[in-house]
Amino acid sequence: MSKEMILSRQDVEFLLFDWLKVDELSQRPRFAGQERFEYASVLDVYESLATDLFATHNKKNDVNEPVFDGERVTINPEVGVALKAFADAGLIATSFPVEWNGMSLPSSIERAGVAYMMAANPGTTGYAFLTIGNANLLMAHGDREKVKPYVDAMIAGKCFGTMCLSEPQAGSSLADIRTRAVLSSDGRYRLFGNKMWISGGDHDISENIVHLVLAKIPDENGQLLPGVQGISLFTVPKKLLNKEGQASERNDVVLAGINHKMGYRGTVNTVLNFGEGRFTPEGEAGAIGELIGEPGKGLAYMFHMMNEARISVGLGAAALGYTGYLHALDYAKTRAQGRTRNERNPASAQIPIIQHADVRRMLLAQKSYASGGLALCLYASRLVDDINSLEEEEQQKQALALLDLLTPVVKSWSSQWGLVANDLAIQVHGGYGYTREYNVEQFYRDNRLNPIHEGTFGVQALDLLGRKTYINNGLSMTLLGTKIEETCANARKVTQLQNHVATLSQAWQQILDVTAKLHAITDVELRLANAANYLEAFGHMIVGWLWLDQAVVLHKKLENSTSPDFIYGKLAACDYFFGWEMPKINSWLAVLDPVETTPLNMHQSWF
Amino acid sequence: MSKEMILSRQDVEFLLFDWLKVDELSQRPRFAGQERFEYASVLDVYESLATDLFATHNKKNDVNEPVFDGERVTINPEVGVALKAFADAGLIATSFPVEWNGMSLPSSIERAGVAYMMAANPGTTGYAFLTIGNANLLMAHGDREKVKPYVDAMIAGKCFGTMCLSEPQAGSSLADIRTRAVLSSDGRYRLFGNKMWISGGDHDISENIVHLVLAKIPDENGQLLPGVQGISLFTVPKKLLNKEGQASERNDVVLAGINHKMGYRGTVNTVLNFGEGRFTPEGEAGAIGELIGEPGKGLAYMFHMMNEARISVGLGAAALGYTGYLHALDYAKTRAQGRTRNERNPASAQIPIIQHADVRRMLLAQKSYASGGLALCLYASRLVDDINSLEEEEQQKQALALLDLLTPVVKSWSSQWGLVANDLAIQVHGGYGYTREYNVEQFYRDNRLNPIHEGTFGVQALDLLGRKTYINNGLSMTLLGTKIEETCANARKVTQLQNHVATLSQAWQQILDVTAKLHAITDVELRLANAANYLEAFGHMIVGWLWLDQAVVLHKKLENSTSPDFIYGKLAACDYFFGWEMPKINSWLAVLDPVETTPLNMHQSWF
Repeated sequence: MSKEMILSRQDVEFLLFDWLKVDELSQRPRFAGQERFEYASVLDVYESLATDLFATHNKKNDVNEPVFDGERVTINPEVGVALKAFADAGLIATSFPVEWNGMSLPSSIERAGVAYMMAANPGTTGYAFLTIGNANLLMAHGDREKVKPYVDAMIAGKCFGTMCLSEPQAGSSLADIRTRAVLSSDGRYRLFGNKMWISGGDHDISENIVHLVLAKIPDENGQLLPGVQGISLFTVPKKLLNKEGQASERNDVVLAGINHKMGYRGTVNTVLNFGEGRFTPEGEAGAIGELIGEPGKGLAYMFHMMNEARISVGLGAAALGYTGYLHALDYAKTRAQGRTRNERNPASAQIPIIQHADVRRMLLAQKSYASGGLALCLYASRLVDDINSLEEEEQQKQALALLDLLTPVVKSWSSQWGLVANDLAIQVHGGYGYTREYNVEQFYRDNRLNPIHEGTFGVQALDLLGRKTYINNGLSMTLLGTKIEETCANARKVTQLQNHVATLSQAWQQILDVTAKLHAITDVELRLANAANYLEAFGHMIVGWLWLDQAVVLHKKLENSTSPDFIYGKLAACDYFFGWEMPKINSWLAVLDPVETTPLNMHQSWF
Repeated sequence: MSKEMILSRQDVEFLLFDWLKVDELSQRPRFAGQERFEYASVLDVYESLATDLFATHNKKNDVNEPVFDGERVTINPEVGVALKAFADAGLIATSFPVEWNGMSLPSSIERAGVAYMMAANPGTTGYAFLTIGNANLLMAHGDREKVKPYVDAMIAGKCFGTMCLSEPQAGSSLADIRTRAVLSSDGRYRLFGNKMWISGGDHDISENIVHLVLAKIPDENGQLLPGVQGISLFTVPKKLLNKEGQASERNDVVLAGINHKMGYRGTVNTVLNFGEGRFTPEGEAGAIGELIGEPGKGLAYMFHMMNEARISVGLGAAALGYTGYLHALDYAKTRAQGRTRNERNPASAQIPIIQHADVRRMLLAQKSYASGGLALCLYASRLVDDINSLEEEEQQKQALALLDLLTPVVKSWSSQWGLVANDLAIQVHGGYGYTREYNVEQFYRDNRLNPIHEGTFGVQALDLLGRKTYINNGLSMTLLGTKIEETCANARKVTQLQNHVATLSQAWQQILDVTAKLHAITDVELRLANAANYLEAFGHMIVGWLWLDQAVVLHKKLENSTSPDFIYGKLAACDYFFGWEMPKINSWLAVLDPVETTPLNMHQSWF
């Protein structure tokens, strides 16, 4: 797969530099002295690795999925080779602070780079993104001395990270976890319990694995308290570190099985037993773990990683949507079939299918979803950069408030519509797209995971309507309104964007009205019953806003452009989104004002 | 898989007898003397076979796909066993006329039965449905004496049928086929060419295979004419029949390869070479075929089978949607996770997820799509019965006109929304649904074929807007309007249905207005540019109409019912469809009046 089939570098650079002005970050101390050419060369590295070492075994990851022989898991050796090269290039630590031996580059640059890996090979990239998220959590909340050996090993590619949250009886409902963490006399803990859906939970490609495990510390009577009480976070390495900080003795973490997935097969998904007694580290059964931060604050810490992972999931979904789009585009330009409706001569040559309006519709839809999703994820990453680099606390707080509000949208909108893009990529290919001889069906299967993991679509919807629209006394919503009004004010100065401004303003006003009406409902079940449609409408409004915001920049760029094809294409995707997608908002809102209660009132016995 | 997980028998019987009044067909000569209990016992047979012999190897068909060793294809022996039992039960000939040794049962009964097979195992069922369609074409258009040996062998399960239309350069554009049929001195033809995407094109489970092949007869200069000129239809058996009508000498039809699909793997999909010269039947290279009917009318005949196949594709898609729904329902009733929004006690037991409003929304959506799609397909089959059994020619013509109009909707709406139902079935299952340990991910992969084969979604859209809304001077549209008005008149008598009547009337009026405006556009490219959205809107309107039509019957049934759960459930699905789905019609129509031209005007270089 050529690099042009993975992502559009021109689009990535437009988003980062023309639109998000990431190079201006260098005016802030955290990123002082960094220059745009450095960012470009780091992107070159991601792009090359994605093309030369990741894309090359993407299909192999699908065909030869991880094998569990009852004892250990074997995965394709290419995965280890690619990840070693990734770590050797310093890319685990792209955005880590200098004091942790990182490059201290902006998160938005890192995400743009990771998007290449996600598009090229999500299965292999999964190990890296979990490791980076794991290390970020350790750096933010761990005791520096204790976690440094792990972080150093991760940067060197010798240790990978996982997040261990779910259990067989506790998936979306983390309050119901039963893994127990018992304090030892030396201040460490022994963990006992079963964890489910653990990506990268065991494999043979790194010297060690460090699990971040949610577990409950029992009360003084040895009882696990109900709800979130007592939920704490622990580092539990696969192999304990010796005095020199090297991985040595096996901890009591046992691989119990692996899941066989529809797609995303390159990332092994495991069931892990903690404290089963198969191993007896330091002479005793029980997985040895060390507490991170304070007891009882595990969920709050874990949300540090989870929020980051949610942006990554959105990013991966948009990236898969993007590569699918580029594949469909390539196919549509070369596959000849049929003639225009106005062509009367059947002896004329068949035309490339891109000349059929309906194929162009499918391509534009993909472009608007994939590039729109990428814009959304990079916008969120740019907020992360603000949080990390703004000097004034008030400004930092605002960036955080906006990011909090947008995170469920970033995760779920990109997952939902990235998948739709992949569906359309198959459709453009016709029968060929349904065969495994082509790439698009794998993208579709891989991407289907994204609306499920790291909080399902329904969970994100409850988070958005039930929590995020309220936080900080509604500060997030107010801030968002200000941002949207700014965009509209800028767009009003561009003649061609007047209709879009009106459409966006109206959509935002509708969302505000519906939000107020829903907030006024006292019955929580009723208020949140149709949250899924609220998220759908909210998400489309957000992406419409970001398209309009880009259109303002694009029109300015057009004034000085000598080769405007790229700009026209982006503006067409924006027009498509406003013409074809924004009208859907009304159809989603139709069940929210008033709340349509057929699902809420449906009896189980009626199904 | 228990039969209750395949389809709802109660729903099937409601649709056939309460709603479509199939038992009243026995008042007509073609079905004279047939009784409801006979229909029910035939359905029992389908249901049992689906449960005991088809569902049992559905997963095996997926895991062990057909293997081509360069010479021959090997498929799972269970496929042959199941199809033999199917034929032995007489089910190839369920709807065949008595004079062809058929049971002469209504097509609607046959389709309801086949829906069980499609839901249980679409891969294995594929062979049967192609064979039945093939035989129907032969009986309708073939020379009785010549085709009888094939039809007899098909009824006996000794010969299977295919349809050979596509070629590598001619998929959607059949005018561009290049297979050549050269007249021999004995009145038969020799065929030369390559056919692509041929389902059931070769295998080892029947004694013989008869291919229905589209090919062009060259003109007097030996040239193939452009366009559809000269396209004719031929029977080309894998093995020639000897004087006793038995399969004997190998014909010059060679298996060149098989396609490896994302799903639907049980049906082998082949590339076939005709007249390659590997075999020399009767001492000469070239596949021996016999002309069906008249030269140059091949496409018209083939549409006999194609239209039937399009209903079958819709039916299969709805059936897969239905079994997915039943699987999701079963899971939702048993999987405990979380608590209601109003539950404050974290120590309370977790509730089955069906108690979450959002899960009920996903289940109701599936029910409305799957049962709605099944209703649509059975409605179409009931029209087939009218065509076959009405005495007055005028009435027959009307049934045909309505069926012609509905066929693209039957095929594409069910495919589109059956797949959405399967997507939601995965979502209800959460992570489990993404694993191959559960069934729903296979349904989703299998169903993804349906929007592609037998005319893609885009092709159906062009057929609907560009052809079907015009035929017979608009008679079809007028008839449809009359039918919709009848339903509305009946529904107006039911207090609870007033809002739905208003919604449907308005939607139909909108469709009529948009149709008139589009017809008034002289530029054909412009008129048809957004046909896909026209089909989306039209399809939802049709299914809304059929839900309302059922609701009238359901309300009547409710008056005498002592166990109304089933009726309440169906009415809720209708309410869901009107509350949540019908609003989408506006969003689709938004780009049709006026025609939104961004895709039409998009330049290739802008992508």
